[in-house]
Amino acid sequence: MIYFNNDYSEGCHPKVLARLIETNLTQTLGYGEDEYCAAAAAKIRDKCGRQDIAVHFLVGGTQANLTVIDAALRPHQGALGADTAHINVHETGAVEATGHKVLGLPHQDGKITAAQVAEAVHAHRTNGATEHTVQPKLVYISNPTELGTLYTLSELEALSEVCRELGLYLFVDGARLGYGLEAKGNDVTLPDLARLCDVFYIGGTKVGALFGEAVVIMNPAINEDFRYLIKQHGGMLAKGRLLGVQFDALMEDDLYFKIAAQADRLADKLRDHMKELSIPFLVESTTNQLFPILPDEILNKLSEKYVFSEQERVDEGHRAVRFCTSWATKEENIDALCADLTALLHSGAFVQLDVTVPKNS
Amino acid sequence: MIYFNNDYSEGCHPKVLARLIETNLTQTLGYGEDEYCAAAAAKIRDKCGRQDIAVHFLVGGTQANLTVIDAALRPHQGALGADTAHINVHETGAVEATGHKVLGLPHQDGKITAAQVAEAVHAHRTNGATEHTVQPKLVYISNPTELGTLYTLSELEALSEVCRELGLYLFVDGARLGYGLEAKGNDVTLPDLARLCDVFYIGGTKVGALFGEAVVIMNPAINEDFRYLIKQHGGMLAKGRLLGVQFDALMEDDLYFKIAAQADRLADKLRDHMKELSIPFLVESTTNQLFPILPDEILNKLSEKYVFSEQERVDEGHRAVRFCTSWATKEENIDALCADLTALLHSGAFVQLDVTVPKNS
Amino acid sequence: MIYFNNDYSEGCHPKVLARLIETNLTQTLGYGEDEYCAAAAAKIRDKCGRQDIAVHFLVGGTQANLTVIDAALRPHQGALGADTAHINVHETGAVEATGHKVLGLPHQDGKITAAQVAEAVHAHRTNGATEHTVQPKLVYISNPTELGTLYTLSELEALSEVCRELGLYLFVDGARLGYGLEAKGNDVTLPDLARLCDVFYIGGTKVGALFGEAVVIMNPAINEDFRYLIKQHGGMLAKGRLLGVQFDALMEDDLYFKIAAQADRLADKLRDHMKELSIPFLVESTTNQLFPILPDEILNKLSEKYVFSEQERVDEGHRAVRFCTSWATKEENIDALCADLTALLHSGAFVQLDVTVPKNS
Amino acid sequence: MIYFNNDYSEGCHPKVLARLIETNLTQTLGYGEDEYCAAAAAKIRDKCGRQDIAVHFLVGGTQANLTVIDAALRPHQGALGADTAHINVHETGAVEATGHKVLGLPHQDGKITAAQVAEAVHAHRTNGATEHTVQPKLVYISNPTELGTLYTLSELEALSEVCRELGLYLFVDGARLGYGLEAKGNDVTLPDLARLCDVFYIGGTKVGALFGEAVVIMNPAINEDFRYLIKQHGGMLAKGRLLGVQFDALMEDDLYFKIAAQADRLADKLRDHMKELSIPFLVESTTNQLFPILPDEILNKLSEKYVFSEQERVDEGHRAVRFCTSWATKEENIDALCADLTALLHSGAFVQLDVTVPKNS
Repeated sequence: MIYFNNDYSEGCHPKVLARLIETNLTQTLGYGEDEYCAAAAAKIRDKCGRQDIAVHFLVGGTQANLTVIDAALRPHQGALGADTAHINVHETGAVEATGHKVLGLPHQDGKITAAQVAEAVHAHRTNGATEHTVQPKLVYISNPTELGTLYTLSELEALSEVCRELGLYLFVDGARLGYGLEAKGNDVTLPDLARLCDVFYIGGTKVGALFGEAVVIMNPAINEDFRYLIKQHGGMLAKGRLLGVQFDALMEDDLYFKIAAQADRLADKLRDHMKELSIPFLVESTTNQLFPILPDEILNKLSEKYVFSEQERVDEGHRAVRFCTSWATKEENIDALCADLTALLHSGAFVQLDVTVPKNS
Repeated sequence: MIYFNNDYSEGCHPKVLARLIETNLTQTLGYGEDEYCAAAAAKIRDKCGRQDIAVHFLVGGTQANLTVIDAALRPHQGALGADTAHINVHETGAVEATGHKVLGLPHQDGKITAAQVAEAVHAHRTNGATEHTVQPKLVYISNPTELGTLYTLSELEALSEVCRELGLYLFVDGARLGYGLEAKGNDVTLPDLARLCDVFYIGGTKVGALFGEAVVIMNPAINEDFRYLIKQHGGMLAKGRLLGVQFDALMEDDLYFKIAAQADRLADKLRDHMKELSIPFLVESTTNQLFPILPDEILNKLSEKYVFSEQERVDEGHRAVRFCTSWATKEENIDALCADLTALLHSGAFVQLDVTVPKNS
Repeated sequence: MIYFNNDYSEGCHPKVLARLIETNLTQTLGYGEDEYCAAAAAKIRDKCGRQDIAVHFLVGGTQANLTVIDAALRPHQGALGADTAHINVHETGAVEATGHKVLGLPHQDGKITAAQVAEAVHAHRTNGATEHTVQPKLVYISNPTELGTLYTLSELEALSEVCRELGLYLFVDGARLGYGLEAKGNDVTLPDLARLCDVFYIGGTKVGALFGEAVVIMNPAINEDFRYLIKQHGGMLAKGRLLGVQFDALMEDDLYFKIAAQADRLADKLRDHMKELSIPFLVESTTNQLFPILPDEILNKLSEKYVFSEQERVDEGHRAVRFCTSWATKEENIDALCADLTALLHSGAFVQLDVTVPKNS
Repeated sequence: MIYFNNDYSEGCHPKVLARLIETNLTQTLGYGEDEYCAAAAAKIRDKCGRQDIAVHFLVGGTQANLTVIDAALRPHQGALGADTAHINVHETGAVEATGHKVLGLPHQDGKITAAQVAEAVHAHRTNGATEHTVQPKLVYISNPTELGTLYTLSELEALSEVCRELGLYLFVDGARLGYGLEAKGNDVTLPDLARLCDVFYIGGTKVGALFGEAVVIMNPAINEDFRYLIKQHGGMLAKGRLLGVQFDALMEDDLYFKIAAQADRLADKLRDHMKELSIPFLVESTTNQLFPILPDEILNKLSEKYVFSEQERVDEGHRAVRFCTSWATKEENIDALCADLTALLHSGAFVQLDVTVPKNS
């Protein structure tokens, strides 16, 4: 079987592994106070173009999300996010378990807008019973989103501006950040994120590391005593060096960006081929996740050889599914899939690609 | 000014007050272990037609909701409710503060259906990543709802049945239960609630008491160690007798039900008059809350003499507002309001009542 | 039976009740935004000699404690307090339920010292693994303490000074504050508390009210959005006026202070009589709580006529028990108890009062 | 510098690393549902001699502790443990952050007894105000303890028996379990733990793994929906395989036990040498942690070449420090340390080893 179901089916990029092997017997201090973490943080600061920012390494995405949000909010405050946001639907209520409500807003292709934020905050503040409702204090977005789409620089600037005007924090979940930064048409850079957000993270788990997310904090209010919160939530590895070693390797010679770019190119290749075959998409993504809509028969046939993940049923005969590429994807497998799709769609057996693409909002 | 803005503008019914005065200097045990609480609980058990149920007295509605839900759920479980549910929008995230997500479902006139519950649970259980999402374990409804509407017996039976089949708890928030039980057309009784729910409460704050809600628990799993949870959440009054005394007075000679019925009749009088005047309603309620839609000019004029609460803007020229009656409402005030409405609507100044009533879902 | 077991066996002082009766049918705004709450808060500000302080009315002591502490602390911070502190042993983990650890310090007669606070904070800060331990951020004391003892002004000043130097909040639980302020030998005033603490509360439940505590906040950091936290924890009464009415009555003509003084005088009378009878005490209290140590036989005999509460077993033949006076205590009952004690101790049946008083620390 | 300060200064055992390298590019399912996790769990079940037990792999110790305790307890319940317990003093209030109080008991050499548990539970249950205090429901012990000591089989059996009689869970934190199982004089086996506890874990982080703890659950009540709790607390690795691969390697050919035994032998060698030199110990440990008490001058001299950790000041001139061995400790370094100690103690400069060893309780 060939796996396209996600971007975490393998271990780590060979260069990351090499570094773990090299450093395995070196003795260091524990809990992230080692030289590898320091070196990786320094490289990230450089890439962000700011030296006045804090970098913390956490084990995973849910942990990063819950720790950041818990650090940022007082008990009565909540996080605004798309109703499709990972924190709202795929983290078993991890944010609520820290006591905070996720305030869902209708999404458009996985995204929310500055206008929606402004409206939600305005509605709260002009409510006759303000203190009877959760106070929005943080805006959570993921970039790329759960649907593989990207915020443009101007969208991000608008969100940042509205947050600053209204006294909210802007938090960008970058579990797949590399794939976003390297996507065709993307106009957002790491320095942009460091300028526009209060906190964001650079995802390692899905982009070349065994595990690990680098949380970058610009706002001192969120960073205050942040290590206590990491520890309290069980996120402080005794051998914190493991995260430093991996991110140091990923940041060296732009490995992180190069492997993300390669995955994006393979996704583009598959996407372009599907478009040539007139396959419709659930959403117009530009990163390493594709959401084609295909007839059940074709999907059933494909599933004999390929693993992909189910997204949603579109109509009685069609489903949207997800194909992911990653740093580990082999071009030959993309080519094989393209060829198989061509063959299946031209076989005459499955002529019907007509489907009404559901509106993503 | 005449207040119609809510049903808690005054103190308590004179008979309740009389009982507080009578018992004021009697010495009792603290924390609800006194004879008055015992007597009130016994009366409630009788009215419910079941002796095998527990009755606890709590100070207020938010507290009752958060304590019951916290008692019922394990950390990864959540409460299904209408997106308009009080716990979802008007309790400052009290349920989330205990660690649990409220899982909002689209409402119809403030209500949810058995089919929606079944679908939500089915979607969770057949999800490929079940443990990545909050597990629905309790259904929260309010009856009457926040929009003054009522569940029919058959709707309640269907909800109860789906909950039992699927292993969920059914919890009915009865903050205004009296006004529901006595509403025209209502076919649900206290014994029905005791038969169909796992837990519900009989609201006192809005129906004649100074404060207090009687939480009735049928399911032993929720009742286990319930007093610890009351205490932990700050809901155990040293002078717990105050709740017993009040509910004992309310349950005696059906005072609770009689005063609720009287409030409902006054609401009906106002509602009927408004209908005669062709005033549209945001929702067809039958209890002590009315949600007429009126032109801004008329509302502005009315607000010189009457206090009502704002519900929502309907269109550029119209708002839906809320009028409430209660045990304390004077019929003469209802009559005055009816007369003023007639005068204002027939004055020629405000002829336009055309409005598209928004769909409540 | 005559109850001396606590100071909350009756309802409220007749003047408080009279005010509730008078105001019962007046219509007001809900949730503590009424004129009675405003008037009571104004009186409290005057008594404290400061106009720049916030006053909030909460239903009970556990609720006041958990709400204040939750408002004051970030997630990784804890509250230092005596190991006998009410929050540490008698509130079912209410503070922990908001996520915060209570850091117990050994008590002396129910009290802790500035030196202990300094040492605990120093130990935390010089720990090699600071972020692995809970950060002390608030000092909780009760005055009077759970053992009926009082902090002197100089002890309180020392605590205040150490808290300010170290950046901690000082919180005084005044559930029985009236009995402390009026105790013989007390040298602490309300203006002292308003000058030395960040937050404290004036207990009503045990000093003349039906229920209610007036939380007085000097520190704006704790007061920010405090009403959201009251609501979230289920502590915001719809008829918040009830608290305003009661505290307004209690603050008028110094009723609160006069009734507390009267209770203290009756406690003194009983205490002096016991001392004349050479009855030893578990602790040298000066407020409305007394902890005499008596032989089991005498206690058994007394319990046929009087209700008191068990404190602890001292040795095989003796127990320390608690007698409380309150605003409701009748002098004739004190006299009766004194006479009975004299009779029992002089009867010859119980000659042995020798006991080693345990050290209270 | 030579590091003896802890047992997590290096990466992982070379055989574990080799397995990570071998399996790096194999594609698997995510979130611990891969074949490596299944294989490792099967081996652990075999070692425990029971097939009816659940095995979950978590990233670290604090996370394992908080997830297990949160899964086991209802909101009003707490965990009994030694006042020195890791959860009580070194996890930044992680357990409290899930809402539960840690109920500290005085320790003896880091341990608590069945009698202490029985007494604490009895005191709770016979308290006149039971629901005002936290309900003890789980006993947490670590084996080896934080002081390197071990529970004997009979002590463990007594704890298990008292827990079962009283309806409490017994949870054994085995962060250093390997070093305990292989210690001289130890009479506890994995099957004993599987027979006597409700849940325990086999620590990997400190015994050969890069990171990871294998949580073994015998009690179905704790295991119910346990994966939801792992996810909610941010402990579910996307590449869960990493934990399976490591534990599979550690369990193969008893690697885990062999490397722990080797570390224990080196600790014994150092301990025996110190005893020959008449160096006193803070506590009589038998595992890989030693707590010698030495004069400040000698410690200062040693610290030029060796890294060790500070435990506590014993008197003005002496400190207790901690030396750890691990699977990675080189015998030549132990020999060098022994020689240096001999030289320093015989140099004449530091003749004074007289010290009063503080009692560990």
